[in-house]
Amino acid sequence: MTTSLIVQKFGGSSLKNPERIAAVADRIARTARSGPLVIVVSAMGDSTDHLIELARQLSQRPDRREIDMLLSTGEQVSASLLAMALHERGFPAISLAGWQAGIRTDSRFSVARIREVNAERIQHELAGGRIVIVPGFQGIGSETGWDEVTTLGRGGSDATAVALAAGLGRVRCEIFSDVDGIYTADPRVVPDARKLDDITYEEMLELAQYGAQVMMPRAVELAQIWSVPLEVRSSYSTETGTRIGGNMEDVSRVAGIAHQAAVAKVTFVALVDRPGIAQTIFAALTIRQVHADLIVQNIGHQGRTDLSFTVPESDMEAASEAADEVRENVDAQSVTVKGGLAKVSVVGAGLSSSLEYASIMVGTLGELGINIDMISTSGIRITCVIDGDRVHEAVRALHRAFRLGGEDSWSATA
Amino acid sequence: MTTSLIVQKFGGSSLKNPERIAAVADRIARTARSGPLVIVVSAMGDSTDHLIELARQLSQRPDRREIDMLLSTGEQVSASLLAMALHERGFPAISLAGWQAGIRTDSRFSVARIREVNAERIQHELAGGRIVIVPGFQGIGSETGWDEVTTLGRGGSDATAVALAAGLGRVRCEIFSDVDGIYTADPRVVPDARKLDDITYEEMLELAQYGAQVMMPRAVELAQIWSVPLEVRSSYSTETGTRIGGNMEDVSRVAGIAHQAAVAKVTFVALVDRPGIAQTIFAALTIRQVHADLIVQNIGHQGRTDLSFTVPESDMEAASEAADEVRENVDAQSVTVKGGLAKVSVVGAGLSSSLEYASIMVGTLGELGINIDMISTSGIRITCVIDGDRVHEAVRALHRAFRLGGEDSWSATA
Repeated sequence: MTTSLIVQKFGGSSLKNPERIAAVADRIARTARSGPLVIVVSAMGDSTDHLIELARQLSQRPDRREIDMLLSTGEQVSASLLAMALHERGFPAISLAGWQAGIRTDSRFSVARIREVNAERIQHELAGGRIVIVPGFQGIGSETGWDEVTTLGRGGSDATAVALAAGLGRVRCEIFSDVDGIYTADPRVVPDARKLDDITYEEMLELAQYGAQVMMPRAVELAQIWSVPLEVRSSYSTETGTRIGGNMEDVSRVAGIAHQAAVAKVTFVALVDRPGIAQTIFAALTIRQVHADLIVQNIGHQGRTDLSFTVPESDMEAASEAADEVRENVDAQSVTVKGGLAKVSVVGAGLSSSLEYASIMVGTLGELGINIDMISTSGIRITCVIDGDRVHEAVRALHRAFRLGGEDSWSATA
Repeated sequence: MTTSLIVQKFGGSSLKNPERIAAVADRIARTARSGPLVIVVSAMGDSTDHLIELARQLSQRPDRREIDMLLSTGEQVSASLLAMALHERGFPAISLAGWQAGIRTDSRFSVARIREVNAERIQHELAGGRIVIVPGFQGIGSETGWDEVTTLGRGGSDATAVALAAGLGRVRCEIFSDVDGIYTADPRVVPDARKLDDITYEEMLELAQYGAQVMMPRAVELAQIWSVPLEVRSSYSTETGTRIGGNMEDVSRVAGIAHQAAVAKVTFVALVDRPGIAQTIFAALTIRQVHADLIVQNIGHQGRTDLSFTVPESDMEAASEAADEVRENVDAQSVTVKGGLAKVSVVGAGLSSSLEYASIMVGTLGELGINIDMISTSGIRITCVIDGDRVHEAVRALHRAFRLGGEDSWSATA
């Protein structure tokens, strides 16, 4: 049986040593019998961290262009090793560097965005019956007039896989990793968490952004934009994983519970309520590369308002610095920074269509006596900021409350 | 003071860890104040061996194209780390991969030859005041119609440096390594061995081919063909090293003693003396990648002749196999293979112009009671194959006999 082209991406821990690479080659070999394959690989295990450590020993703030030259070698190593392992199994295979594979990006080193895929070389190799192996995470940018190696930022290999799947005709893209799919909650926290068969791009995006670490949010975004059908699968089993795809039937349901620890909350108390104030604050954060989210502004009174947002706890110091810098400018009475918090999120398509979800969530946390520091919602997500020490307890209780461990997920319309 | 462009090459042991890379950066920084620089680097320490070991674990006979993709990453790593170390010292620097640096080769993977250097990008970066760092040992070949990463074989970084020096206008090329120059003999064997200030390409070539491991013979050959002035220097001191250059004054002298242990001798006894016989033998060796040298054929009598040659002891088994294969074809009475031998060579410009050199060499070995298995000469070299156990003793005696430890070397015309 010949199937159509598939792009498969294997993560670093699935390739962390020669034994694992050999196992991945066995797995690819089975699939390769039934149709053409493009394989995207991450760097072996912690080799990227090792390269970064070398760079740190030589420079306090390594140049981004050189970091990209350095780190791009990691994926090239696993790509050529995997090609050799496939040869050993009698399969024609060829590894292509990012610049050979035609992954064209902009020229923003370390945070490059893929602009287009020129798949000419890949098509040529596929036509020759070869399995094509492409190092993820990297590309080539030419905005300066010279070809430069660029990288896409951490987790960029997922984006490479999605971009290739799109560039090769919106073919199927399978993301292989240590986990066998998307779960209704982190199985390490919730023992009876259930693997989902299907999930929408939007749900996956919210889960990824609010704690599930299976896929990079940006890759999910790209898959949605380019309509690439995704599947998250295990490198170690042949079972189907979780399919991520277009809009499912318009049923209101809860897909899963995401959580994120080590969160801090920053509040500007009674700042002057005039246009441009928030921009001043966020510019000071951006300059320090602090990513704020869950921004909440209370209704102002007497020309004053409170503005709160969350930052990763590791950015607390930088956030405090930024706050000190702009406090006078924005005329805030005071600024409070509070660490030791966590985010817990309920995610599901059409969640906002019923207030019932929010009331169950708030009620469940209330029954446990867990104080809610902030609430923020999107169309398909409700997030509460709570005490970090109680987040696992909260995840388990919410998983139960929305009956996610059973055969079917909880639905407000049921 | 502004000097003209120099190409400097740093070997792997000078770059084996971040501390060493930092030391090399310090050294480059001093030179960079006085003029433009192109730096060629090898892979860090034993990182190439580490990559080869990974490949071996995945494939018995790894594909050469993939080996080149794999190994080329090693030099790219040291190139970008060195660029970062120079930035840290306030020097603008940029690393270019082989394909960016315009090192065009043929498409013979793992043993590629440099065809031309398209120095456009390097010139652009130099014009911008940047130190340009180029990974050695690699290039780009396009004979298949597609750009492919190629490597030049072990020690190929020297060839890269020489080719760049040639391509940038026959500028000076400095080879930095753990040794501070070319010595009259291996200083580990001869304590009063003397560093040479100057040596000709031909002498260097003979020394390199017959035991001195400072530079790859091929790089010396290229320097001679392209008239690139070379200097072999120490990475750890600022002293001048040994200059390798054009023909020196036409004085007959001994430059140094080279030696090589672990040699085996193969003799085809009384083989039929007709054209094409030697070719049959050497074809069988070539197919097994056995490199034979010091080929000696005795004057034939009664249509029979003896043919002897040396091979590295590590190739003894393969050489025996080859001999077994062709023995009947070449109608040899017997084949003997003898290991445990060594080569000792006296090298000097115009050495063959006087028989005195040969008689002193043979006499010195004779006085020690060292048996000579074979003698072979070139225009500037006399090599004897002797018992391996006695080679150090022989080197010391010859060094003394030719008065190489003193201020001036021995000369037949003096």
